[in-house]
Amino acid sequence: MSKLVIVGTVAFDAIETPFGKTDKILGGAATYIGLAASQFNVDGAIVSIVGGDFPKEDLKMLEENGMDISGLEVVEDGKTFFWSGKYHNDMNTRDTLVTDLNVLADFNPQVPQDYRDAEVVMLGNLHPLVQLGVIEQMNVPKLIVLDTMNFWMDSALEDLLKVIAKVDVITINDEEARQLSGEYSLVKAAQKIMEMGPKYVVIKKGEHGALLFSEDDVFFAPAMPLREVFDPTGAGDTFAGGFTGYLARTGDYSYNNMKNAVINGSALASFCVEKFGPERLLTLTNKDVHQRIQQFKSLTQFDIKLT
Amino acid sequence: MSKLVIVGTVAFDAIETPFGKTDKILGGAATYIGLAASQFNVDGAIVSIVGGDFPKEDLKMLEENGMDISGLEVVEDGKTFFWSGKYHNDMNTRDTLVTDLNVLADFNPQVPQDYRDAEVVMLGNLHPLVQLGVIEQMNVPKLIVLDTMNFWMDSALEDLLKVIAKVDVITINDEEARQLSGEYSLVKAAQKIMEMGPKYVVIKKGEHGALLFSEDDVFFAPAMPLREVFDPTGAGDTFAGGFTGYLARTGDYSYNNMKNAVINGSALASFCVEKFGPERLLTLTNKDVHQRIQQFKSLTQFDIKLT
Repeated sequence: MSKLVIVGTVAFDAIETPFGKTDKILGGAATYIGLAASQFNVDGAIVSIVGGDFPKEDLKMLEENGMDISGLEVVEDGKTFFWSGKYHNDMNTRDTLVTDLNVLADFNPQVPQDYRDAEVVMLGNLHPLVQLGVIEQMNVPKLIVLDTMNFWMDSALEDLLKVIAKVDVITINDEEARQLSGEYSLVKAAQKIMEMGPKYVVIKKGEHGALLFSEDDVFFAPAMPLREVFDPTGAGDTFAGGFTGYLARTGDYSYNNMKNAVINGSALASFCVEKFGPERLLTLTNKDVHQRIQQFKSLTQFDIKLT
Repeated sequence: MSKLVIVGTVAFDAIETPFGKTDKILGGAATYIGLAASQFNVDGAIVSIVGGDFPKEDLKMLEENGMDISGLEVVEDGKTFFWSGKYHNDMNTRDTLVTDLNVLADFNPQVPQDYRDAEVVMLGNLHPLVQLGVIEQMNVPKLIVLDTMNFWMDSALEDLLKVIAKVDVITINDEEARQLSGEYSLVKAAQKIMEMGPKYVVIKKGEHGALLFSEDDVFFAPAMPLREVFDPTGAGDTFAGGFTGYLARTGDYSYNNMKNAVINGSALASFCVEKFGPERLLTLTNKDVHQRIQQFKSLTQFDIKLT
């Protein structure tokens, strides 16, 4: 089992979906990534920042889920990053209502000394320079996975390209892949993005699944068809946590094992959307996950005798 | 090997995509279905109608692809059904520019006597009463597959529901499944549609693949990620032809074999979109199809060792 460093937001979210709305609840990319990765009992560390208003019991909960939080800075006289959003009826699009950076505005990530030798680094969506700062603190990780979004393509493309050049895997959604590459075809988009640095590109298509591209190959994991998607918040981060958690757990960073990691990420994401925020992840058992993996097998595996 | 009866349009299409445009070329649901099914060397019959303007060499071509055309009526003083459409840049939506029913307006399908004992019937998209007329001419088919579209839901819902009650499998796209069922969730939509009659529901999602639902199970086939989609016309019909062709070829109508049929349908559809109209289907070899099936395996098959 390898160590896993996770950098990303730990935050408050207020969410509205067609099914209801929440007050400020626990959120943030690193929270979802950490909780998903914890399903694989990895030795993980969350590198992030919160304010004095962040509940001590949530910090404790992250620790109890196996996350080292010595790199999770608490600014006692500051306020925690807050995001609020409202989903449209189709759940595929949302409006951001509020983004209060608060303590995140001055985030200077510090990877704990004990984790600088980690094999796997998961860079959650943050300013590219913050992500770059984390990479520079690491010794020689075997796998760096980057998540980012269109906001940084619009506002900090040059910095983003520097990070992209240094990572092994990038995970972005289909529209972002098109924006970054200037190609509509996802096959062409992935090829262009690989030319920017990453050996692998994961394109997340939400309810339409995820594609894993290597130079010569492509693998597809569907999203599990669900009776109801309750709240998509955090699904992409949960996918990333399942993906890197599985890879850290197995220590096998081959393309073949990445296929399994994509399925594990998809399985965990399919739980995430069943309840508001990270609620469902908190009650998830190993047995639940195994059953969902079996469902993915039944969903995708076939045995054609060629005629 | 079982006999396959195909009812649907044989037509002229004029197509415009971002890659170019065609004059009147060969088209029609039954054309695509027949050419796709012919890949499995089935004993198929096309039941349709054309005008005197329909090229004799196209009739011959259908015969040379193993299709009986004794049920393909030629109205010498009539004109063939004509459809013209223009695809938008994303290729997922199109505008219909022209629909000239011509001889199709008085189509009274006659299934050849030799094919009334066929095990498999593929009802291509047509007025529900025409589809019903074909069902009534059959002896006791083992599998009736229905394709339809939103147009009939808007204009002939009562007749459509009568047909739906009599078929084993319905293939429709995601938006049509939502319209027919009144449910946004495709899982719930499929369940409601199964309550209307069919034992199986295939929901086609275009570039996002296809879902096969049974009462207790669900299977997913992705669309093959392609560098370029040249012309989506006929992809859904090609899918249906590959699906029913494979089932007729194997004579196995179990859910497990339907999974294989869905993959075969997806494989054939992935060829169809590579060129204008049915052009690519005409040059397709058995080897091409086998290779594409292997690509589907590589795209979807994984081997997780649960941790």
